[in-house]
Amino acid sequence: MRKICIVIGSRANYSSIKSVMTAIKKHKKLKLQLVLTASSILDRYGKVSDTITNDGFSIDEYIHTIVEGETLLTMAKSTGLGLIELSSSFDRLKPDIVLTVGDRFETMATTLAAAYMNIPLAHTMGGEVSGTIDESIRHAITKFSNIHFPASKDAEDRIIKLGENKNSVFFVGCPRIDLISEIIKNTSKIDHNEIFKKGVGNEFNIEKPFLLVSQHPVTTEYGNGEIQIQTTLESINEVGLPALVLWPNADAGSSDISRGIRKWREKRSSKNMYFVKNLPINLYILLMQKTSCLVGNSSSGIREGCFIGTPTVNIGTRQNKRERGKNVIDTIYDQKEIVDAINYQIKNGKYISEKIYGSGDAGKKIADILANFKNLNTQKTINY
Amino acid sequence: MRKICIVIGSRANYSSIKSVMTAIKKHKKLKLQLVLTASSILDRYGKVSDTITNDGFSIDEYIHTIVEGETLLTMAKSTGLGLIELSSSFDRLKPDIVLTVGDRFETMATTLAAAYMNIPLAHTMGGEVSGTIDESIRHAITKFSNIHFPASKDAEDRIIKLGENKNSVFFVGCPRIDLISEIIKNTSKIDHNEIFKKGVGNEFNIEKPFLLVSQHPVTTEYGNGEIQIQTTLESINEVGLPALVLWPNADAGSSDISRGIRKWREKRSSKNMYFVKNLPINLYILLMQKTSCLVGNSSSGIREGCFIGTPTVNIGTRQNKRERGKNVIDTIYDQKEIVDAINYQIKNGKYISEKIYGSGDAGKKIADILANFKNLNTQKTINY
Amino acid sequence: MRKICIVIGSRANYSSIKSVMTAIKKHKKLKLQLVLTASSILDRYGKVSDTITNDGFSIDEYIHTIVEGETLLTMAKSTGLGLIELSSSFDRLKPDIVLTVGDRFETMATTLAAAYMNIPLAHTMGGEVSGTIDESIRHAITKFSNIHFPASKDAEDRIIKLGENKNSVFFVGCPRIDLISEIIKNTSKIDHNEIFKKGVGNEFNIEKPFLLVSQHPVTTEYGNGEIQIQTTLESINEVGLPALVLWPNADAGSSDISRGIRKWREKRSSKNMYFVKNLPINLYILLMQKTSCLVGNSSSGIREGCFIGTPTVNIGTRQNKRERGKNVIDTIYDQKEIVDAINYQIKNGKYISEKIYGSGDAGKKIADILANFKNLNTQKTINY
Amino acid sequence: MRKICIVIGSRANYSSIKSVMTAIKKHKKLKLQLVLTASSILDRYGKVSDTITNDGFSIDEYIHTIVEGETLLTMAKSTGLGLIELSSSFDRLKPDIVLTVGDRFETMATTLAAAYMNIPLAHTMGGEVSGTIDESIRHAITKFSNIHFPASKDAEDRIIKLGENKNSVFFVGCPRIDLISEIIKNTSKIDHNEIFKKGVGNEFNIEKPFLLVSQHPVTTEYGNGEIQIQTTLESINEVGLPALVLWPNADAGSSDISRGIRKWREKRSSKNMYFVKNLPINLYILLMQKTSCLVGNSSSGIREGCFIGTPTVNIGTRQNKRERGKNVIDTIYDQKEIVDAINYQIKNGKYISEKIYGSGDAGKKIADILANFKNLNTQKTINY
Repeated sequence: MRKICIVIGSRANYSSIKSVMTAIKKHKKLKLQLVLTASSILDRYGKVSDTITNDGFSIDEYIHTIVEGETLLTMAKSTGLGLIELSSSFDRLKPDIVLTVGDRFETMATTLAAAYMNIPLAHTMGGEVSGTIDESIRHAITKFSNIHFPASKDAEDRIIKLGENKNSVFFVGCPRIDLISEIIKNTSKIDHNEIFKKGVGNEFNIEKPFLLVSQHPVTTEYGNGEIQIQTTLESINEVGLPALVLWPNADAGSSDISRGIRKWREKRSSKNMYFVKNLPINLYILLMQKTSCLVGNSSSGIREGCFIGTPTVNIGTRQNKRERGKNVIDTIYDQKEIVDAINYQIKNGKYISEKIYGSGDAGKKIADILANFKNLNTQKTINY
Repeated sequence: MRKICIVIGSRANYSSIKSVMTAIKKHKKLKLQLVLTASSILDRYGKVSDTITNDGFSIDEYIHTIVEGETLLTMAKSTGLGLIELSSSFDRLKPDIVLTVGDRFETMATTLAAAYMNIPLAHTMGGEVSGTIDESIRHAITKFSNIHFPASKDAEDRIIKLGENKNSVFFVGCPRIDLISEIIKNTSKIDHNEIFKKGVGNEFNIEKPFLLVSQHPVTTEYGNGEIQIQTTLESINEVGLPALVLWPNADAGSSDISRGIRKWREKRSSKNMYFVKNLPINLYILLMQKTSCLVGNSSSGIREGCFIGTPTVNIGTRQNKRERGKNVIDTIYDQKEIVDAINYQIKNGKYISEKIYGSGDAGKKIADILANFKNLNTQKTINY
Repeated sequence: MRKICIVIGSRANYSSIKSVMTAIKKHKKLKLQLVLTASSILDRYGKVSDTITNDGFSIDEYIHTIVEGETLLTMAKSTGLGLIELSSSFDRLKPDIVLTVGDRFETMATTLAAAYMNIPLAHTMGGEVSGTIDESIRHAITKFSNIHFPASKDAEDRIIKLGENKNSVFFVGCPRIDLISEIIKNTSKIDHNEIFKKGVGNEFNIEKPFLLVSQHPVTTEYGNGEIQIQTTLESINEVGLPALVLWPNADAGSSDISRGIRKWREKRSSKNMYFVKNLPINLYILLMQKTSCLVGNSSSGIREGCFIGTPTVNIGTRQNKRERGKNVIDTIYDQKEIVDAINYQIKNGKYISEKIYGSGDAGKKIADILANFKNLNTQKTINY
Repeated sequence: MRKICIVIGSRANYSSIKSVMTAIKKHKKLKLQLVLTASSILDRYGKVSDTITNDGFSIDEYIHTIVEGETLLTMAKSTGLGLIELSSSFDRLKPDIVLTVGDRFETMATTLAAAYMNIPLAHTMGGEVSGTIDESIRHAITKFSNIHFPASKDAEDRIIKLGENKNSVFFVGCPRIDLISEIIKNTSKIDHNEIFKKGVGNEFNIEKPFLLVSQHPVTTEYGNGEIQIQTTLESINEVGLPALVLWPNADAGSSDISRGIRKWREKRSSKNMYFVKNLPINLYILLMQKTSCLVGNSSSGIREGCFIGTPTVNIGTRQNKRERGKNVIDTIYDQKEIVDAINYQIKNGKYISEKIYGSGDAGKKIADILANFKNLNTQKTINY
């Protein structure tokens, strides 16, 4: 049995890989190894490790890596600390393949630990473009990876252009879409109380039109987060619909955005807004189905949004050039532009589903390829 | 004045960047910052930090990063430890640009520290191909770098194919060639005693024909070093010329090669061989001028070799596909093949100099570009 | 000039050493070096580094060490990370003496870095007894220290009993008392708005009788914090006076106490309570002067309390056996006992000032001793 | 079954605890957990981990901690790195008791990891006095330990004087003596070839009179090692007997001593000397039985020496005040004093065995106490 080791570093990571984990666990030729690290094991970020255990997976190792500060400096340090301990983990677990997910800063620790130790590395969601440091991380991981699982056709092409061997690149779609498709099938109603139980602000009726706001820091624009979120909140306010606003996730610059939200709330009544942390993925997806418009710079508007058909206003550079469907309108941080775009989307209503990021079977495909991939030699060579 | 921070991790690193350091130091618009790390500050590897100080450079910080073991595992850990402390260094020194050299494992620490902290990153010797983990490291660094200084035309093309912006790629030649050209100009005679003062084995007359052997571990073939070096030594023995053999540098797998040498010496008389560690670069270059043939897998046979015209037998995958001149014959680890190739080279004699890796002015060019490069925005975007 | 390097790891640390810093800065024979680390540089804990800069001190180095989690495990890891970087700091700053403050977990990093590097170590507040891991840390630091500055006579005796050389032990009083005496002299009125600007809960009139509550986790009773704080809050509620409750500081187990507070607030109206983080020391001291009773397990009730005369109810083992004045009544975590003790203290009113922990001139004394201490040999030898 | 976790950091550590390991392994109520770290897993120091496996013990975790450099700085850093990973080990292994051995720098990492995580800590060889940083480390560990196993009566008294609870202090003798007594019983002849197979220098007949030299760096006299060893070698030379000289173990300052040996060998013919690294403990003990005099500053001359009766000349401060038998003469680093002392010991011949450090049953006693010790509460309190 091939041992496949997956390293999960955040709540978002888990949503991006859960269907693969399920498929590996069921696969006759594969054995799943799980290492949890970074914010995935921290109370402050909702400790997704508990959810993972509840979902029936067993966790092999817990590695604390986050150096406090949420600055660019501590982002680097946390990656270093991760590298020190993840290499020991791999030395104990002796996986046949390490599977790394996406492009968050901590995935570089997984990547270097595996690559330096001659453990074949597989990578999901490579080849995509975006803004922030993630862009560079993603392509660097591609250059260390032995098996690639791009989520879109476009990304597949880009990985090959980066000089990777065609035989190692498999367009399988995005495992997040697997999860979303599952959630949409199985759940029909949102429980009002579940959404409004942990946040602050004013509750509203989610059966009536509302906005969903999710805005994260851009590491390469470090220091601008405060004004960026305030522009967004001001725009939301002008549009006038009630809004569910998510706090930013734990990255360098999060505190700028959090401060921006707090300051704005002090000045403004924001009587139509409710602020929450860490919505469970199933609730979030159901909200994406219902919302009149998703506003901010989350990749979900683009990736999950095109599948669900969520009207989306994407602000700024964070999703720069990422492949997108008709459901997305891009704007800069300009209140008038943002307000106009939101109003357009409210009027337009839901879009038709597009399958750019796959159709919901990525997990199974990935597991099968991992089970049968022949050439596990780790020496890479560029194709030109 | 722009502050340019160079991180040096080994003796080889220093040779690869010395001419750039000199040019930066002299440049009116630039200020040089130096951080020494990894094996460059360790007694066991000849402590090149002392040489650097003697050469008139002042060192800003010393960062100990090498976790003992010389295994793949400790290579990963050392990089993690480097990342933890180099990020603090950059936070104190606040460089305008970090310049990273080549592709050794520890350069990933420099790279991630700078890139994560939004400090523009410049990179020498990118775009080349080779074997070992260096191949992946080199291209990953390219994906994080904002300014590229390829050493060959071929490498320049490859960097652009990797999706980098043409305006950020400058073919300047290799700074090592600057140094070699300098050494060749200034020195004419080798002092026998300087070569034979620190090693073990039997001295010989370097004015008569001799072989030079330099063979390093290949991380991606970890565990094979012992048999690889023994095949080489057996071949040298069969050829029959006296040989100067260099111990491997400090990498994962070095101890395999060292053990191979020691075991071979116990079995065999090796009366024609002398074994040394850490020759100063000027001695090494003069030996490359004199030797009948350079044997092993060092990049020097290919890079410096084509400029000097050193007959070279390159064994195995370590320099796989690296652009080379006429002076190189490639072989696998097969005694007959190696012996034949060496004998061919002995007969052929010295080759005509080729300028594949530049003509000796890379340092000045790099300093000028660093002083005047306009677009220091760190947000990268792939060109396709 | 002797270079005295002080490492500050928390807001509390600063209050405990500020008068010494001022005295060193003014001293002709001394030069102050400051390294800030642990929670002292983190936004989440009020970033005392900003206060320190505003107070006119210049900071030499900032070292991020806190590994997120606030568990026993991350407490150990943070200390390890601190040791890795503080040793580099000392290597750069080359202090003649390192001065470490008190007994928090991170002070072990300062201690080992200095002691292992043969830098003479001075220690304030050694020789005291208490509960929690601090008890062991404090005595272990004594065993590494070359100069001791106990804050009480009792502590001085204990240090000598621990086998330390009498000539290296100086009873100087507690530098916190210096600060308190200063604050009391210079400030007369509390600004209501400053206290009630950042917290949650219901404001009350601080000119009328109120309780002050400060309760922290006990590492050696890890996991019990939730029920401990709830017992305290229930008792406060029964007594019926309005109360200002401080959130716990950043230690292993803080989240237990925070959870305890949050849960209790959900169940109970707590209409008389206001909850705040990080009061500036001057406000806190003024509140200690005014409060009808200080309740919890903070050392301030014992140390500052005896000087100010604050009626104090000290609960549980955290201050176990620490030398105390008449102002303290000790109880276990029992509601009836706590309520009775608080009511007794309310009735009793303020106590007469006791000088157990010195009379306000510790800072100057310490600076003078550091300037003139002769025997800076670091080899220690036990006195029996 | 109680899980007892032993952390071994060096070859010497293993000799000091092997009999305890054997006794724990056999004990019905105990389960042995082994973590190997520091130099115990490094090729360069003879990788005692292989010996341990060959002896039939299974190793639970390998933790690489040694940061290269062998300086005071890297000694501190290595301890920090150890603390980071050992805490994770304990988190995985969940021992009921951690047992730490002696006083080497890396034992502080074991100590802090256990103590901070509320795992009861047992300690062997506490309460002794000596020079070097070990003196402080040893007593600091005592202040963190919950169960004490002093090796001598004197040490037992000292631990109690340090304020430890009498019920937690057990004079059991030294487990090294167990091993020595075993070796002496089971082996009668030394194989000449085994001793002279790996070193350099001139072999001699060990059946005739010879000296044994073992001299290590003193961290608190860092920088003096070169001249110290040269004084010793010069004295040995003057005495004129052949000598077996051991290279120093891996500590801050080892390279000073190694350099001293190398330089001395270059100047002097030393035709009577043979230099070896890492003698297996059984060979070493047999040599201690045979030698005319053991010279240097190794604790073995004092501890094992009094049991065996080895004439010993102990030079300098390293064993300062350690309890010793009649077999030891102390000198300073003065050639005349050393020569006189050696000549006196040669004339005197072997001493009668003294049982200061126990009589060979420490291992069994320790295992029994660990199995039955009742009070595993980790909160300590000083006894005065």
